Amino acid sequence: MPDLVIGGSGFVGRNLVRSLMGRGRAVFVLDRVRDATGDFTGTFIQGDAQDPELLASVLADVRPDDVYHLAANSDISAGIADASLDFGDTLMTTMSLRSALVQVPVKRLVFASSSAIFGVVDGPMEERGPALPDPVSWYGKAKLASEYVLDSLSAERPGMSILMIRFPNVVGPLATHGVVYDFVRKLRSDSTKLEVLGDGHQTKPYIHVSDLIDGIDHFLASAAPGVTRINIGPSDLVSVREIAAQVCEVLDVSPQVSYGDSAYGWLGDVPVYEFDTSKMRREGFTINTTSREAVRQAAEALAREWTAECQQ
Amino acid sequence: MPDLVIGGSGFVGRNLVRSLMGRGRAVFVLDRVRDATGDFTGTFIQGDAQDPELLASVLADVRPDDVYHLAANSDISAGIADASLDFGDTLMTTMSLRSALVQVPVKRLVFASSSAIFGVVDGPMEERGPALPDPVSWYGKAKLASEYVLDSLSAERPGMSILMIRFPNVVGPLATHGVVYDFVRKLRSDSTKLEVLGDGHQTKPYIHVSDLIDGIDHFLASAAPGVTRINIGPSDLVSVREIAAQVCEVLDVSPQVSYGDSAYGWLGDVPVYEFDTSKMRREGFTINTTSREAVRQAAEALAREWTAECQQ
Repeated sequence: MPDLVIGGSGFVGRNLVRSLMGRGRAVFVLDRVRDATGDFTGTFIQGDAQDPELLASVLADVRPDDVYHLAANSDISAGIADASLDFGDTLMTTMSLRSALVQVPVKRLVFASSSAIFGVVDGPMEERGPALPDPVSWYGKAKLASEYVLDSLSAERPGMSILMIRFPNVVGPLATHGVVYDFVRKLRSDSTKLEVLGDGHQTKPYIHVSDLIDGIDHFLASAAPGVTRINIGPSDLVSVREIAAQVCEVLDVSPQVSYGDSAYGWLGDVPVYEFDTSKMRREGFTINTTSREAVRQAAEALAREWTAECQQ
Repeated sequence: MPDLVIGGSGFVGRNLVRSLMGRGRAVFVLDRVRDATGDFTGTFIQGDAQDPELLASVLADVRPDDVYHLAANSDISAGIADASLDFGDTLMTTMSLRSALVQVPVKRLVFASSSAIFGVVDGPMEERGPALPDPVSWYGKAKLASEYVLDSLSAERPGMSILMIRFPNVVGPLATHGVVYDFVRKLRSDSTKLEVLGDGHQTKPYIHVSDLIDGIDHFLASAAPGVTRINIGPSDLVSVREIAAQVCEVLDVSPQVSYGDSAYGWLGDVPVYEFDTSKMRREGFTINTTSREAVRQAAEALAREWTAECQQ
């Protein structure tokens, strides 16, 4: 009963694969590149998930019980400059997966959706309710369109469980991008200054990757046939200014911190939002790590990784 | 300065192509099948617009000024049974067109969007405003996702005019589907009875195809670079019961009319809606044909077509 992780070499993928291997699962990873950290011991299949025929043949060979679809462009601002990233890496991989899953069914599918599908919302982002989706970035639009595409599988495969996990910023070990990663990288290369994108008042929830994976596991274990959409995240927020302070404290540096003028970190950014996780809590899953703690733990992990890398 | 009509053999496509030819334009049609009516005198290119390489090579060969993207599944209920229709014929053709237009730019692009992107809305459907999109059918989801995909072209091709025309049910000559077509077809084969899908109280706006084409022409002539979204349609509504009465009067038949129990004509139907066309009117375009008149004119045209076909 193997698992197939599409996009298993990315940040969330690497952490998920380690967690699945730790639980004794047989793990297959399909990705364009092999996880550079080198400690993946499952089966790696190199290929582009945009290719529906490749996906169908991988599904037919591996015959997984569970498929995790994490393949996506993860760089929202790069996607603003080149929308092919989001509509190729995110939406086209989903289209291919849909057509492959029509040919080769699986029991359960997890799709990594995003808080970005909501766009700018007045009040907390609920799964359903007054805040209908209206994404601002191509990233968010490609994720929302992907939800639509995968939704339709429930008509063709009524017995299948389709879990759409919507999560905000993720932080933690093995990161490849994101604000904590950027700050650690910049400060390790020059500890005297830190340039922050935007005015630093961007205030959002941040989830630790291990909480995210626990949440996926929790909701997958109880997932009924059909589509389940669930927001997973902490209910508190942390500002980019606080993140900078946390990272500096962890690294024990006191740089000159400079801020931009804009309320936005980048084009397509949603600078302030709250994430409604009441459905998650009602359904028996809680996250005890606050956004602030998640950021601090991530900074510690990344600082250790950086030190280990430099000592090699 | 040729025009390329993708999906030019369908209902709206046939009417558009005739109108463009009437205005002396050089018209190229790309479609999977040739328009069966046989009076198209432009250049027909047979092919599937889901293929991005084919589209790029057609664009490079034809070098059109204007591209009309009408390729889509037009049968909402068939799409409910097989979502491959909407995500293939509608969304995949759009994805391919996006990637082809990144390679070969054109001046202006018209995309046939739909009132179905809105879903069930409390009050009239505005272009923007309190009624954010929340489509119920795969048809509507594929159209909305297509808007997102084409939106992104404005970043890569800032000089291009991208006109997204959202319209409700279209009726008129050369129809291939739809309620008026169905009623005429059924009554021509058996004039003693008429079975109506749903309870007949479905009440919606219906636009005559010639008004739609005039509207496209109006807004294309004034389209600025960037994306323009516009609702085109009449502001009044007509019920399915009234449509049945109009068609019976035109055909001069008095069948036994039977209705279903459901408020919905089919799965994915939005049985009652109003279409806000105030932006259209503010920007200088009005439609004088009411929904009721559009339906009657369509029934007359289809009755004539049917008679002509039977006399051949």
